Amino acid sequence: MALERGYVQIYTGNGKGKTTAALGLALRAVGRGLKVCVFQFIKGGGLYGEHFAAEKLAPLFTIIQSGRPGWVNTKDITEDRSVAQEAFARAEILLKSGEFDLFICDEIIGAVGFGLIDVEQVLELMAKKPEKSELVLTGRNANQQLIDAADLVTEMREIKHYYKAGVPARTGIEM
Amino acid sequence: MALERGYVQIYTGNGKGKTTAALGLALRAVGRGLKVCVFQFIKGGGLYGEHFAAEKLAPLFTIIQSGRPGWVNTKDITEDRSVAQEAFARAEILLKSGEFDLFICDEIIGAVGFGLIDVEQVLELMAKKPEKSELVLTGRNANQQLIDAADLVTEMREIKHYYKAGVPARTGIEM
Repeated sequence: MALERGYVQIYTGNGKGKTTAALGLALRAVGRGLKVCVFQFIKGGGLYGEHFAAEKLAPLFTIIQSGRPGWVNTKDITEDRSVAQEAFARAEILLKSGEFDLFICDEIIGAVGFGLIDVEQVLELMAKKPEKSELVLTGRNANQQLIDAADLVTEMREIKHYYKAGVPARTGIEM
Repeated sequence: MALERGYVQIYTGNGKGKTTAALGLALRAVGRGLKVCVFQFIKGGGLYGEHFAAEKLAPLFTIIQSGRPGWVNTKDITEDRSVAQEAFARAEILLKSGEFDLFICDEIIGAVGFGLIDVEQVLELMAKKPEKSELVLTGRNANQQLIDAADLVTEMREIKHYYKAGVPARTGIEM
């Protein structure tokens, strides 16, 4: 099956649930026989639970990770930007191939926030996506241009987070 | 594997992404070998994409649907309340069995909003969950008592939604 028409969705905000909402969309879409690609930006730090689950849902579900191991070097973004630009070019080719019904650019808005990808590049990606592909962007602090260009925008707002009570990121829940 | 300790998470608000965030958590947890139950309240209206995907992730992933077909009869909740109360009793038994590392009560907060389940019942469920089970509750308009009793609360806030532009719920995306 295929979507009759694809839209652009954004999950932003400072709360937990942006990447997980995108993963949930992926799960539902795969269940319906749609082909899904989750392309993760600034996440080169190792495999998460979703990577192991994706294997069980292959060939409909593809996850691609990009980014340097560790966190973005905010003092000198040169290397991170180069890695992110290469990843962006790859994501663009995959999205434009039209092979995927649902294409998720996870944390691409974070990459924009760090200056690794330009907002104009993302706006162009949104404008030139295949008509029948649903495009989902995640990451905190989506700027107004991105919001204006999207069809659906949800802000995940943190009301309360257990990391403030000292709970560390847990395998199977946060990673 | 198992969680060292489970917490209570709430996804509420009027935006898209509550159920999908819970499903994404389920996907990640299954990927790590955790056992997951998604117990859906007031969703008796037929199978969604997640149900088909769950089959592919069995035996780690169980989804149970409850509720009358169609929407809640807000003029006379008698029947809906009776169905929801039966479902709640079943969910309680499953959660307390300790068999599931991640237990998701999807739309239970909506069921509270409709008066089908009492807030005191949910508070007791939260208080008496097995120590190592993560409990996730979803639904709009979580009241302050539930928020106070939870460890993590995210509000999904609608910034923009394409249903206002006339886009209907689509198979593979919304259902």
